[in-house]
Amino acid sequence: MRALCFDGTRVAVRDVPRPEVDEASALVRVSLAGVCNTDIELVKGYMGFRGVLGHEFVGTVAEGPAALLGERVVGEINFACGVCTHCTAGLGRHCPTRDVMGILRADGAFAEFVRVPIANLHPVPAGVPDQLAVFAEPLAAAFEILEQVRVEPGMDCIVLGDGKLGLLAAQVLQAAGAEVLAVGRHPEKLAVLHRCGIRTRLASDAPLGPASMVVEATGSSLGFARAVAALRPRGTLVLKSTHAEQPTVDLAPLVIHELHVIGSRCGPFPPALRALETNAVDVRSLIHARVPLARADEALRMAAEPGVLKVLIEAG
Amino acid sequence: MRALCFDGTRVAVRDVPRPEVDEASALVRVSLAGVCNTDIELVKGYMGFRGVLGHEFVGTVAEGPAALLGERVVGEINFACGVCTHCTAGLGRHCPTRDVMGILRADGAFAEFVRVPIANLHPVPAGVPDQLAVFAEPLAAAFEILEQVRVEPGMDCIVLGDGKLGLLAAQVLQAAGAEVLAVGRHPEKLAVLHRCGIRTRLASDAPLGPASMVVEATGSSLGFARAVAALRPRGTLVLKSTHAEQPTVDLAPLVIHELHVIGSRCGPFPPALRALETNAVDVRSLIHARVPLARADEALRMAAEPGVLKVLIEAG
Repeated sequence: MRALCFDGTRVAVRDVPRPEVDEASALVRVSLAGVCNTDIELVKGYMGFRGVLGHEFVGTVAEGPAALLGERVVGEINFACGVCTHCTAGLGRHCPTRDVMGILRADGAFAEFVRVPIANLHPVPAGVPDQLAVFAEPLAAAFEILEQVRVEPGMDCIVLGDGKLGLLAAQVLQAAGAEVLAVGRHPEKLAVLHRCGIRTRLASDAPLGPASMVVEATGSSLGFARAVAALRPRGTLVLKSTHAEQPTVDLAPLVIHELHVIGSRCGPFPPALRALETNAVDVRSLIHARVPLARADEALRMAAEPGVLKVLIEAG
Repeated sequence: MRALCFDGTRVAVRDVPRPEVDEASALVRVSLAGVCNTDIELVKGYMGFRGVLGHEFVGTVAEGPAALLGERVVGEINFACGVCTHCTAGLGRHCPTRDVMGILRADGAFAEFVRVPIANLHPVPAGVPDQLAVFAEPLAAAFEILEQVRVEPGMDCIVLGDGKLGLLAAQVLQAAGAEVLAVGRHPEKLAVLHRCGIRTRLASDAPLGPASMVVEATGSSLGFARAVAALRPRGTLVLKSTHAEQPTVDLAPLVIHELHVIGSRCGPFPPALRALETNAVDVRSLIHARVPLARADEALRMAAEPGVLKVLIEAG
């Protein structure tokens, strides 16, 4: 089958063997896959990953249990052992021996087929077309904030970064009752939020806040200091950016202002699928382009350009 | 009066005017004052402080309301406005216009007299001698952890750093029901905890944890990375160290393991005074030496030497 592979140096579409599945896994024929900033960081060396990239997808079960065959599915990306103390405590996303699709050991979804543990699959509601369903994974990451932080009605919240995750996080927080101010560098991206009734502001040197919560989704190592500066004492910083750089950080404000910093990664799929089904979140406006799998390397380069939101790879 | 002053370059005992008090303040004749690591950092440039150093003290009210005259007192160090939204919400320690005794604008307690707002004073219970009462402020900082984090019975907790604050934090956490492992570089300091029934270990390259909570009280910019590495996924890092350096920090593990980082500074005095009254915490073993105010500069140098715990300055 064709797949977008990273060998540590180069990214290229290659012919690779179709994944083999065992009784705990299904083979999913990928319809659409989404390029995430993490993919771009992986190619810069983040995590030291080698293999087939891609962890946002929607597809159809081609091999697996009879009950699932032909079912349209999305899938959680952490392949957990299911038996350790983390897994039995419901923290499978933190299983210490997990593989992570397209990020850590496991091959990803920028391919004709991807192997996914059955436990990770979620059927897609009939009313959700593929081009929306493919957002289930990043939207779940936005919902993760609500699993970690109690968002009170009217809570003042700044979202830093108008990339894909920032736009999703701003919408999820606004829907949860927060008073959101989204700050970014791209008027056309902020316009997506403006249309949803979310306050927006172009990033500048003017001070922000102080806010009760800041979501750092800039994808830049500079975002941390800006987020810290925008918080009120005892405020909460939700860290969403992952990148390969190691910034120089002044930790003193964390202690002086007794800030809470909460790292936030993958989230729960069910609320994301519900939000897609009810159109509670506008993901359609985030689609920048659809590129065939044969030119998936181009999709990755396109997604790394400034101003570009979600690039979808058509595998089906 | 005599006072230990820092002018931005040099630390020296000088003659300075006795502080003037208004109707909201009391003049406290200092009996004993304690040297904190923050004092040592201030002299390295932390906070850009100029003036009389010192923020841990016990003394006697010399001028002020009749009801307090002659009363033995300790005092909270954040001089809050009392009327802003933080103050009225009970967060006076985070009042944005606060002065901080011996740290930010307000003169400190390494002096014969110190001015303290009446609202900041706490009478010392009769059974608590001066040499224990002088620990009220740093012990309150240890109790701050309990105000910020729900410590469950048997919660596994690592305290990194066997300095003064580390030794107090380890004892407070153990008393609150946590299973504490204290890690430090000084066998004689760890012995204080061992005598209290707390597990101790000499710092080495061997991996620690994974623990549910790590208190970073090393006072070193290297402590952050060590604390992060010792946490289980979704674990809590309580940051206690303040220092002038800005370390290079890998923020990715915070996101990947969804860690909580909580900055922790000054704490509540009442539980600290109760713990001193009931001898629930051994602070006596932390006293390294008592030095007269006339040689307070020497006390500061002594406190900065490796292996030295609390140096007390005798002002009375």
